[in-house]
Amino acid sequence: MDADAVARAFVEHYYRTFDTNRAGLAGLYQDNSMLSFEGAKTQGAAAITAKLTGLPFQQCQHNISTIDCQPSGPAGGVLVFVSGSLQLPGEQHALKFSQMFHLIPTPQASFYVLNDIFRLNYA
Amino acid sequence: MDADAVARAFVEHYYRTFDTNRAGLAGLYQDNSMLSFEGAKTQGAAAITAKLTGLPFQQCQHNISTIDCQPSGPAGGVLVFVSGSLQLPGEQHALKFSQMFHLIPTPQASFYVLNDIFRLNYA
Repeated sequence: MDADAVARAFVEHYYRTFDTNRAGLAGLYQDNSMLSFEGAKTQGAAAITAKLTGLPFQQCQHNISTIDCQPSGPAGGVLVFVSGSLQLPGEQHALKFSQMFHLIPTPQASFYVLNDIFRLNYA
Repeated sequence: MDADAVARAFVEHYYRTFDTNRAGLAGLYQDNSMLSFEGAKTQGAAAITAKLTGLPFQQCQHNISTIDCQPSGPAGGVLVFVSGSLQLPGEQHALKFSQMFHLIPTPQASFYVLNDIFRLNYA
């Protein structure tokens, strides 16, 4: 798959998993993975999954507006840059966000998330 | 310098150069650099500089709201994620944007931009 196909497949899988089975995101991270969520840094699959499953909302719905991707170097990594909105239960307006991922190939011909940076877009 | 110091110094230098001497950005890119600007991809320092200097506004003022950074792997690269606003001449409202850079160390103990992805945050 080229970088564009990798990025599209990853984004579809990531946000569907986030919205339907958040704990399932654990399989996408490894021990050296890092998450920066609204400026707070967390490292490692277990801590990142705890952070994401502990966010103060249960149900949510991501809607994706744009996906940009580029190869991150000669080793097969892919940078993915996403913009979209996040609808929370009981909220009239969706929250706009931007997020980037650095995907690293695994020996199983898949990818894991080494870097994950999330920011809400404040108006 | 740690990744945070690299990121802050780079961001300060990048946007000051963009706002005061845009052609001077050429020195930050190399032949394998890629820019995705509002979804349009450009590769190589010369083409990227042509794209940036050819944008349909002359003067501008970036104001930075947040800077996140993470190491991109064991080779010394740094991922930088920026949010901020862009004030154009004659426009009442600044444009919000998000941008990411992947910085790669050079033999001269500096960094160049391998990956650059820019998106305006549409309301």
